Amino acid sequence: MEDPTQQEEQASAEVRERVRDSFERQGLMAHLGARVTRIGPGRVHIELPHRPEVTQQHGYFHAGATSAVADSAGGYAALTLFPEHTEVLTVEYKINLLAPAVGSRIEAIGTVLKSGRTLTVCRLEVFGVQDDGERKLVANGQQTLIRVDRPEA
Amino acid sequence: MEDPTQQEEQASAEVRERVRDSFERQGLMAHLGARVTRIGPGRVHIELPHRPEVTQQHGYFHAGATSAVADSAGGYAALTLFPEHTEVLTVEYKINLLAPAVGSRIEAIGTVLKSGRTLTVCRLEVFGVQDDGERKLVANGQQTLIRVDRPEA
Amino acid sequence: MEDPTQQEEQASAEVRERVRDSFERQGLMAHLGARVTRIGPGRVHIELPHRPEVTQQHGYFHAGATSAVADSAGGYAALTLFPEHTEVLTVEYKINLLAPAVGSRIEAIGTVLKSGRTLTVCRLEVFGVQDDGERKLVANGQQTLIRVDRPEA
Amino acid sequence: MEDPTQQEEQASAEVRERVRDSFERQGLMAHLGARVTRIGPGRVHIELPHRPEVTQQHGYFHAGATSAVADSAGGYAALTLFPEHTEVLTVEYKINLLAPAVGSRIEAIGTVLKSGRTLTVCRLEVFGVQDDGERKLVANGQQTLIRVDRPEA
Repeated sequence: MEDPTQQEEQASAEVRERVRDSFERQGLMAHLGARVTRIGPGRVHIELPHRPEVTQQHGYFHAGATSAVADSAGGYAALTLFPEHTEVLTVEYKINLLAPAVGSRIEAIGTVLKSGRTLTVCRLEVFGVQDDGERKLVANGQQTLIRVDRPEA
Repeated sequence: MEDPTQQEEQASAEVRERVRDSFERQGLMAHLGARVTRIGPGRVHIELPHRPEVTQQHGYFHAGATSAVADSAGGYAALTLFPEHTEVLTVEYKINLLAPAVGSRIEAIGTVLKSGRTLTVCRLEVFGVQDDGERKLVANGQQTLIRVDRPEA
Repeated sequence: MEDPTQQEEQASAEVRERVRDSFERQGLMAHLGARVTRIGPGRVHIELPHRPEVTQQHGYFHAGATSAVADSAGGYAALTLFPEHTEVLTVEYKINLLAPAVGSRIEAIGTVLKSGRTLTVCRLEVFGVQDDGERKLVANGQQTLIRVDRPEA
Repeated sequence: MEDPTQQEEQASAEVRERVRDSFERQGLMAHLGARVTRIGPGRVHIELPHRPEVTQQHGYFHAGATSAVADSAGGYAALTLFPEHTEVLTVEYKINLLAPAVGSRIEAIGTVLKSGRTLTVCRLEVFGVQDDGERKLVANGQQTLIRVDRPEA
């Protein structure tokens, strides 16, 4: 399965900077070794390379690591559609672990399904990716987020 | 809110050893700094101390860290009711983040609601705990798990 | 399993009237034959008697009927804690069907877990009830709701 | 938004008959007035016309009715990929109500995301459809189902 998103549109420079600034302040993402690899309007990709620190007892990616990058991808996808001086909080999400999360890395994609004034709903997808580029859907979820106004400094 | 589980029953020594063995093979749990603090029949507690490596951009516990320990607590709660030579996989879970996850640590509690031959359903609760012992429910979820037979070595 | 809620507190007369007024305007609830049987602060019970019109292909209560009364019970539980001239909308819910929903009736109980300014989270439980009063948990869920201000007439 | 599924493949005659037989035994679906409108391999459509019997207090489709047809669409989508003499049960589902469900009818589409030996995961979509054919996504969900062997008669 090829990555159908190779050609997809980028968000504006201002939005991309806002996402990267927030991402860099997330201690957990750095600690896991995750990185943002694409920031489109309403769609963000986060990758997590495989290493023992992110596994469960069989050496696969831990469902908690899979969910953490999926949750962040959805949160930033929502944020790309918000005005400046706002923030996003996850209200809830649900995720199905469809297959053992194997691969040299996983790629989480958050996509906005519905962007409302208060609430946003995202689709969450996580693919296991092999070194040869082979991709397999290993988790699929749905997330609700809320927009919060942030006072200007 | 006091911890109502102080007096609760412990699982058998065999079951506790099985849970601890599996937990120690989870690279992610060690990497986050989580530890199992109680193993009862159908109920497991996991604690995660606060440190920058498990936070989101405001210094609270990251939803991904909160979910990871909740998911593991539910998985091991299910495992306590399984026979030997079986394993547990998370099918799916849903979690609501009810309040900012603040505290010197979080405590995740997984409790079996229904234990079937194939599928188990757990309730997931995560409390933020202050140094003075004050506890607040910060996340609440529900999880479906499947039992898998493991060939004897 | 006895009903542990026999003695529970009632909501105020104003709140109970508000809930009953709204319930009576729900065409679906009347069409299914559901009725509100208890209105406490943050907790509402709805019962649905068994008849062929609410079944699936094996004669059990249909998951759709089970969910419909669970969703309404949670919505009205949220509403009991709202001020006048507000309304409630379901944002999302998740429900596990734990056992075949058999019985002469089902009883759905919605209970508020967290009541916020904008969002409310409820626990949803559905019991199958036999004529002799025996009760069994047949579904368990979790629901997010949003408060909406309604202009005064 | 046009219906992108106009041209989609039909399931075999045997499978379509199996789905229709089961659907006709669901008292709830007849009572609501729902009908199966398309049976493809791994994908089933169910329509529900608007009438007062399926509404909530504002005259929109009730979330319970929306969910009931979504749940059935997913269940039958799973069934189309099963062998004969098997049945399907809903394990759980999660649904977001994205917009008021208005229209002369709603159309629920269940699509299999992952079909395993024991468990199947479906995407659930519900569209509000106007008389002029305009379609709007009003609910989106995700569902887990289990396959059950049925003894031959």
